[in-house]
Amino acid sequence: MPVPRPTRGRPDSAQLVFDFADGNRDQADLLGGKGANLAEMTNLGLPVPPGFTVTTEACRFYLDRGEEPQSLRVQVTMALRRLEDQLGRRLGDVQDPLLVSVRSGAKFSMPGMMETVLNVGLNDYSVKGLAEAAGNERFAWDSYRRLIQMFGRTVLDIPGEKFEAELDAAKTRAAVASDVNLTAEHLRDLVEVFKHIVFDATGRDFPQDPREQLDMAMRAVFESWNTDRARLYRRRERIPQDLGTAVNVCAMVFGNLGEDSGTGVCFTRDPASGKLGVYGDYLVNAQGEDVVAGIRNTLTLEDFAQLDPASHAELTKIMRRLETHYRDLCDIEFTVERGKLWMLQTRVGKRTPAAAFRIATQLVDEHLITDDEALTRVTGAQLAQLMFPQFDADSPRDLLAKGMAASPGAAVGKIVFDSHTAVEWAARGEDVLLVRRETTPDDLSGMIAATGVLTSRGGKTSHAAVVARGMGRTCVCGAEALDVDAENRVLRVDGREIAEGDVLSIDGTTGEIFAGERPVVDSLVVTYLEQGLDAALATAEPEAAELVSAVHRLLSHADRTRRLNVRANADTAEDATRARRMGAEGIGLCRTEHMFLGERRVLIERLILADDDETREAALAELLPLQRADFEEILEAMDGLPTTIRLLDPPLHEFLPDRTELAVRVATARATGEPDPVDVTLLAAVERLHESNPMLGLRGVRLGLVVPGLYAMQVRAIVEAAVARAAAGGDPKVEIMVPLVGSVMELHLFRDENDALIAEILSAGGHDLRIPIGTMIELPRAALTAHRIAEVAEFFSFGTNDLTQTTWGFSRDDVEATIFARYLEMGVLTVSPFESLDRDGVGSLVRTAVEAGRDARPDLKLGICGEHGGDPDSVHFFHDVGLDYVSCSPYRVPVARLEAGRAALVSETGGAGL
Amino acid sequence: MPVPRPTRGRPDSAQLVFDFADGNRDQADLLGGKGANLAEMTNLGLPVPPGFTVTTEACRFYLDRGEEPQSLRVQVTMALRRLEDQLGRRLGDVQDPLLVSVRSGAKFSMPGMMETVLNVGLNDYSVKGLAEAAGNERFAWDSYRRLIQMFGRTVLDIPGEKFEAELDAAKTRAAVASDVNLTAEHLRDLVEVFKHIVFDATGRDFPQDPREQLDMAMRAVFESWNTDRARLYRRRERIPQDLGTAVNVCAMVFGNLGEDSGTGVCFTRDPASGKLGVYGDYLVNAQGEDVVAGIRNTLTLEDFAQLDPASHAELTKIMRRLETHYRDLCDIEFTVERGKLWMLQTRVGKRTPAAAFRIATQLVDEHLITDDEALTRVTGAQLAQLMFPQFDADSPRDLLAKGMAASPGAAVGKIVFDSHTAVEWAARGEDVLLVRRETTPDDLSGMIAATGVLTSRGGKTSHAAVVARGMGRTCVCGAEALDVDAENRVLRVDGREIAEGDVLSIDGTTGEIFAGERPVVDSLVVTYLEQGLDAALATAEPEAAELVSAVHRLLSHADRTRRLNVRANADTAEDATRARRMGAEGIGLCRTEHMFLGERRVLIERLILADDDETREAALAELLPLQRADFEEILEAMDGLPTTIRLLDPPLHEFLPDRTELAVRVATARATGEPDPVDVTLLAAVERLHESNPMLGLRGVRLGLVVPGLYAMQVRAIVEAAVARAAAGGDPKVEIMVPLVGSVMELHLFRDENDALIAEILSAGGHDLRIPIGTMIELPRAALTAHRIAEVAEFFSFGTNDLTQTTWGFSRDDVEATIFARYLEMGVLTVSPFESLDRDGVGSLVRTAVEAGRDARPDLKLGICGEHGGDPDSVHFFHDVGLDYVSCSPYRVPVARLEAGRAALVSETGGAGL
Repeated sequence: MPVPRPTRGRPDSAQLVFDFADGNRDQADLLGGKGANLAEMTNLGLPVPPGFTVTTEACRFYLDRGEEPQSLRVQVTMALRRLEDQLGRRLGDVQDPLLVSVRSGAKFSMPGMMETVLNVGLNDYSVKGLAEAAGNERFAWDSYRRLIQMFGRTVLDIPGEKFEAELDAAKTRAAVASDVNLTAEHLRDLVEVFKHIVFDATGRDFPQDPREQLDMAMRAVFESWNTDRARLYRRRERIPQDLGTAVNVCAMVFGNLGEDSGTGVCFTRDPASGKLGVYGDYLVNAQGEDVVAGIRNTLTLEDFAQLDPASHAELTKIMRRLETHYRDLCDIEFTVERGKLWMLQTRVGKRTPAAAFRIATQLVDEHLITDDEALTRVTGAQLAQLMFPQFDADSPRDLLAKGMAASPGAAVGKIVFDSHTAVEWAARGEDVLLVRRETTPDDLSGMIAATGVLTSRGGKTSHAAVVARGMGRTCVCGAEALDVDAENRVLRVDGREIAEGDVLSIDGTTGEIFAGERPVVDSLVVTYLEQGLDAALATAEPEAAELVSAVHRLLSHADRTRRLNVRANADTAEDATRARRMGAEGIGLCRTEHMFLGERRVLIERLILADDDETREAALAELLPLQRADFEEILEAMDGLPTTIRLLDPPLHEFLPDRTELAVRVATARATGEPDPVDVTLLAAVERLHESNPMLGLRGVRLGLVVPGLYAMQVRAIVEAAVARAAAGGDPKVEIMVPLVGSVMELHLFRDENDALIAEILSAGGHDLRIPIGTMIELPRAALTAHRIAEVAEFFSFGTNDLTQTTWGFSRDDVEATIFARYLEMGVLTVSPFESLDRDGVGSLVRTAVEAGRDARPDLKLGICGEHGGDPDSVHFFHDVGLDYVSCSPYRVPVARLEAGRAALVSETGGAGL
Repeated sequence: MPVPRPTRGRPDSAQLVFDFADGNRDQADLLGGKGANLAEMTNLGLPVPPGFTVTTEACRFYLDRGEEPQSLRVQVTMALRRLEDQLGRRLGDVQDPLLVSVRSGAKFSMPGMMETVLNVGLNDYSVKGLAEAAGNERFAWDSYRRLIQMFGRTVLDIPGEKFEAELDAAKTRAAVASDVNLTAEHLRDLVEVFKHIVFDATGRDFPQDPREQLDMAMRAVFESWNTDRARLYRRRERIPQDLGTAVNVCAMVFGNLGEDSGTGVCFTRDPASGKLGVYGDYLVNAQGEDVVAGIRNTLTLEDFAQLDPASHAELTKIMRRLETHYRDLCDIEFTVERGKLWMLQTRVGKRTPAAAFRIATQLVDEHLITDDEALTRVTGAQLAQLMFPQFDADSPRDLLAKGMAASPGAAVGKIVFDSHTAVEWAARGEDVLLVRRETTPDDLSGMIAATGVLTSRGGKTSHAAVVARGMGRTCVCGAEALDVDAENRVLRVDGREIAEGDVLSIDGTTGEIFAGERPVVDSLVVTYLEQGLDAALATAEPEAAELVSAVHRLLSHADRTRRLNVRANADTAEDATRARRMGAEGIGLCRTEHMFLGERRVLIERLILADDDETREAALAELLPLQRADFEEILEAMDGLPTTIRLLDPPLHEFLPDRTELAVRVATARATGEPDPVDVTLLAAVERLHESNPMLGLRGVRLGLVVPGLYAMQVRAIVEAAVARAAAGGDPKVEIMVPLVGSVMELHLFRDENDALIAEILSAGGHDLRIPIGTMIELPRAALTAHRIAEVAEFFSFGTNDLTQTTWGFSRDDVEATIFARYLEMGVLTVSPFESLDRDGVGSLVRTAVEAGRDARPDLKLGICGEHGGDPDSVHFFHDVGLDYVSCSPYRVPVARLEAGRAALVSETGGAGL
């Protein structure tokens, strides 16, 4: 007795096939986007050719098991019968055949990624029936050769060039320029040739059974979900790999039946600019694929109105109907078959960032959507794109190489190879690009002076990238094709040499590096953000003005809506002032290490080289007034707003020269004479401080506890600065943040040493200031013991950069170029965890720490100051997990404001998509 | 109306004072160890002077609030009245005064750490009463001067030297050598002088009110809990800082009333060797402090028997009674006052490791305890100490310096500065000590050849320390006082120069470095472990034989008792064989990186330098048979036992020379001529592979996924070795372990690539072998996403070394010398988290991963292969958390076996002390 084979319950008992009339637009999970929208249009009573959709569930079953669910065949047979009955024609009938299109349709649009087969149902017999029914023999043979060509390529995996070569040969033989000039005779011959190609490639005849054609086409669509390019596309677009695609089987209508037929695409508003008014292309006597192929020139909708006023009028009415129904820009495909309009597809249309903002506010003004809805229609990523200048797309391009798109924007300038030159040339009014193998903190002055930064090494979170993003400087990094020869002041690439002073153009949005100067278009949105609405509107063209107003309206609405506060990471009074203009409600991270650079470097060197208390204390005493002045300036700039100052974090040897370089210099000098005694002393210090893994070494609070007086000096400078500001009538709200705490004991010891000092200075100052002491949570252990740390810390600020490094064991300086590139390719990562917060790992530590911290101290203030503070997706997570604020680079503040508003809406409406 | 001050409920309503007769020995939490044992002896009817105990709870209240609980005064008053009534004397009475001792007594013994005041109750009047009652004026004045001296130092914080100086002056004036020769007159004068010292130092008179003396003394005892030295002691001994101490107030008895009085300490067995028979010291006409001070020579118990047969007989009876009652070695203090024996203290006695093992089995043989109890009386740490050779304590010592005690043992040898010399000299039969600034994998041959390793840099988990511990080589590391000048073949320390070939002796248990040769005593326990019981007993003296038998009995019982399996970390067949002899039940970690060293180095260099697939594949093809042979040997050694092989883990550049050294060599050569072209090529490779933080870089599975063919070669070698072993009739049980997994996708990709390869080789081999694939859990993210990883991994092995590094953000190569030393001092750490598992941080990740992993795959096998696998305390944690096995270095296997047995007992009896 045969044992019945167990089947997975659902697919075999489930409904796997839906007629268009049975679905609706909310069923994109099951029917795919295209199927759901076809169903919606059918139910709106719009002229959609009848058909049915095979569900994504059937596809997933197939991909999982390698065969269709048993019940699928029967369900397709029944749907086909309903279709045939409705149209009174039978699939592949020899008299008046029903032909169908077979199209993929996944939940998320993947344009050009997956397969379509048209004219299914034609064979050696039905082609004649079609010719008779259409009264057009050429049309029938053309349709048949198209079927064999598409089916051969898509279903049978025969290289498309084989068919194209024969098509070209036929044109040559017939001495015609275009395939429209091939006659029925020519095409009938071509069909024979195509059938031979199929036989030669597959060992069997082109299938004549219409149902076999349909089944094979459906299966090919299923399989197209898993092609390499489709997988890669989804990885890049962060679309899950396990959704599967639906298959839409739809009665064919023909735009290629003559001059009274045609096909087109249209948008209910301009998706490029967001301008009001419909917009589209129409092609006479053509099928959809011809529009896509762009072989012939298309007509505008105005031309179409003149050509076929009735169809145009109906289309216009339908467009209005769809936009009102979908309450958004719609993207439509249609066909006219002998004067009859058919809707083949609609969906909410993609659009440029500018169009997104303009259309969202237009729809509010038209009372189609609310302000809240408008806010959900734009994204922080779009706003970020609007903030960067761009190269004029029409200008000529001489592409030299491509690196990583590290900090967006378009920068043009003369290249220089060191900071000194950068500062000098910039001072005399030149635009310069700083070109380095990689940058170090010493390049800061050069990076500030330059309009853009270009490196040949390092990933998206290398020093160059992080600092450039922080300053809003355009940056392309890790362009490994470049040979940066700073010594000889020349950049070599692909056999070309670019000398210092030559002009390059770099695009930080694409990573492209161009020779010569490309014209740049400025961002009016930045003018608005930096100088206010009036300043921006004063000079704006009407379209730009509408855009800026839209940005202003939606940002203002986000500010009204959001629960998260947005602060900025800023180290100087200048940055702080800019951040405040950008809408920052405080500083979440003021790093103090940058204050040790430049001319103060000598002091920190003295501190490091000190071998007795006296020398060290003298160095600290000299640093104190300088730091105090820094803090006073910042507190003045942020008067009335919370300002979190982080004590010194990096290892001391970062302030000394590179070990290998120095050792080589000393050895070289020694080989030929006497080395510089300063170098010898420095080298000894570098050797003494050398660490194999400085990221995991003597830094942060460890440094503060081990180097006597260092943190006390910084604390004194901060508190004295606050007292001075209060004395001057200001309202300083400073917070002291201790970095790299791993054990509550470290914080206890810090407070033991410094609480009394703070109290003493405050009481001497006579001002009633409260200075909260908090800590970074940037080590897994800090997150895991947050309940204890919260007993001693008044606030937590998640340092998600470092937390990502230790949670994953990834050094951000090292892995981006070597590992991440490959991991993104292989799909281990879908996005760098340094760019967008890894919720499963790092996120779970953040959640643990938030809960444990609040448990131990209900009024614990919680923020985040890593790069993720300005990442749209991460902002949603921080909202959901209940932080009080995010802090990000000044230029990301508007992005974070917008996303925080959106997050509040998504959460309030119960959305769980994020 | 005054608002009543809120009080903490318990201490003011609780019983804070217990008469000795009211307590028992289980109340050490409340009464301290001493108080609980005094109560126990009182209730046994032994002659204990009456008294009472103030609880630790009162102490904690005092330390918390800075004042005693309100009800304490009344309770002390009532206890004092009961005491006075019982003895018929009153505290400080002018006729026949009751005097009391006030002694600290915490739950855990802290010898010498805390305070004692004797003779409380004496003042200018009662001293005369005492003289009369005792009929001994000298005794009374001596007691009074002792009170002022102890009270002054302990309670009033007056430097003890002030009193000692005056005592010396008095002796000089009286022209006597010892204070026993001072007369009553002298002592009366001295009391006056002492009283002046008190007045001068405190501005007030020595308190005459006996009750004030008592209250002040009790408070001083409370406060002695928090002295720096007490805190430091507890930190070192891992005693919690918040227990507090009890105070024992006890009627004074006097051993210094004449020749018929005296005081002594005794043990019920020899605590040094564990020999049967009582053991002790007696001092005639003395008080306890005189014994401790060691001023006069003590008598043996045999002498005491001749001197005072009655008291001695009673003492002997009491000793037997106490040992039977406590069922363990007891440590006793007693006093004889005019022929009457008084018991002043008893406790379970401390003992040496050898005594612990011998006494535990003796007590079993005497039917006093069970085998299970015996097992709880010894520790893995004690067993470890028994395994190391030691310097003969009586031999002369010329201490040069002290470093870190990295790997225990005593090693003597001629110093050499490189591995080559070490191997050469060892080959001709010399004992050598390898002395390096720090060691690298290239020093392996030298470390194997040497008897000990000495470095001037690196902490307890530096390369030298880890490898030496793994091999059981004695090692002292990070001895920073040493200047290792390998170039000039000389070691400089403190102005002395030690040349290559000179002999040093290093003690890996203490970190001490001695000049010259010190005689070493070998460990018979190791002979037993390595060669079996018969071999060890064959040559043993009777006492040593008893010890070895005891170790054997208790280890065997541990094996019967434990649930945890114990495996070893072993990289070679030789290590594997040794591990097996030591009782290892498998290999938990076979590292494959050591297989790439030595003469094979050239192959890995070729692999690294390969710039095309062909060269790389050729290098891999050459490595394959070598690795296969390695694995065959190991699988043969471990036939029938599970053997977990870890794929290549370290970054490739670890196999290349040091970057700075190489750059200097090339630069130096370049400055004077032409550099070696090989060096130039190598330098380019080193530069290309250079990482700022290699610990967080391209290593482990990342390397395996990024370098094509590398892991596949290793997998092939492993599986082919297993097939070959099976073909030869063996029973290979190999497991493949993938290191540094952070995302389940990495493991998916590994299995995608290798599962088919494994199946293919196995099926070609025709043997039905099962080769489980598992992963290290050594990144926080792996632990946090263990539920997903367990879906793909058949076993987890916790790599707690790396997990500790990333959880804490500590690079073990960097932080031990710079940070840990200070952190241990400051109390941030009580022990290095690399030595003993950090339960709050790393442990919580282990627990999370165990639970999530078992949840996803109930038969998931769980082990640990970090250094912690051989740490006694950590073994208990791994038992409690439910692992299947621990894996540690071969020499730690017996320690882990013993501790695993103990852990099973503690858990089964519900003990929660760990």
